[in-house]
Amino acid sequence: MTGLIRNIDETTRSPVQMEGVVGASMAVMVGRADGAPHFSIRQFQVEPGGHTPRHQHDYEHEVYIVSGIGTILLNGEENAIRGGDVIYVPANHEHQFRAAGGGDSLRFLCAVPVEQNCGGPVPGS
Amino acid sequence: MTGLIRNIDETTRSPVQMEGVVGASMAVMVGRADGAPHFSIRQFQVEPGGHTPRHQHDYEHEVYIVSGIGTILLNGEENAIRGGDVIYVPANHEHQFRAAGGGDSLRFLCAVPVEQNCGGPVPGS
Repeated sequence: MTGLIRNIDETTRSPVQMEGVVGASMAVMVGRADGAPHFSIRQFQVEPGGHTPRHQHDYEHEVYIVSGIGTILLNGEENAIRGGDVIYVPANHEHQFRAAGGGDSLRFLCAVPVEQNCGGPVPGS
Repeated sequence: MTGLIRNIDETTRSPVQMEGVVGASMAVMVGRADGAPHFSIRQFQVEPGGHTPRHQHDYEHEVYIVSGIGTILLNGEENAIRGGDVIYVPANHEHQFRAAGGGDSLRFLCAVPVEQNCGGPVPGS
């Protein structure tokens, strides 16, 4: 196993194809394929006015907002988010990221465990 | 357990007091105290010319460089690092972060598992 360095601006993202997603793309920055034993880091970009799905799952997210502004549905309400925010979404908590319209894209890193609590790999890890 | 949002610019860092550290401070952004079950995210700031210890341990790092420039000792050599870099330091790999002299501080996020592979909590998680 070897250490690695990858820049988020030099990594190709793919469209996120899930129901309820509008204008989002992602790339795994460090993940299972790199031998990451416990958790993965993925980068996401949500175009202005776009959003991730409103959903929940049995594993947590730990997120860092790189740039842009928007909102996150968390704790049952919409919360403003901006660059520099670290966000903890506990397991089984409903959440959704939205990029503000008309501005820059919302860019963030989203870390997840590689294994679901109920077993099996976390999708996109 | 509740979701949380904390900005890295509004969180108080404490000096890192370890042998081999010069000019580094850190704050846990999401960690064990917040109920994080698998991994923690800490923020570090290394002053120009400062560095973290040259060391290794039995757990991995997954790092995001927020801003600044410097180098990381990884894979047995010094590698340039800059904002936007994601770095994977596998377990038991020697590493050290250095901030370039005379410029801005090097700011980064460093995620670690909450448990060491040999057992017991990861320090600063």
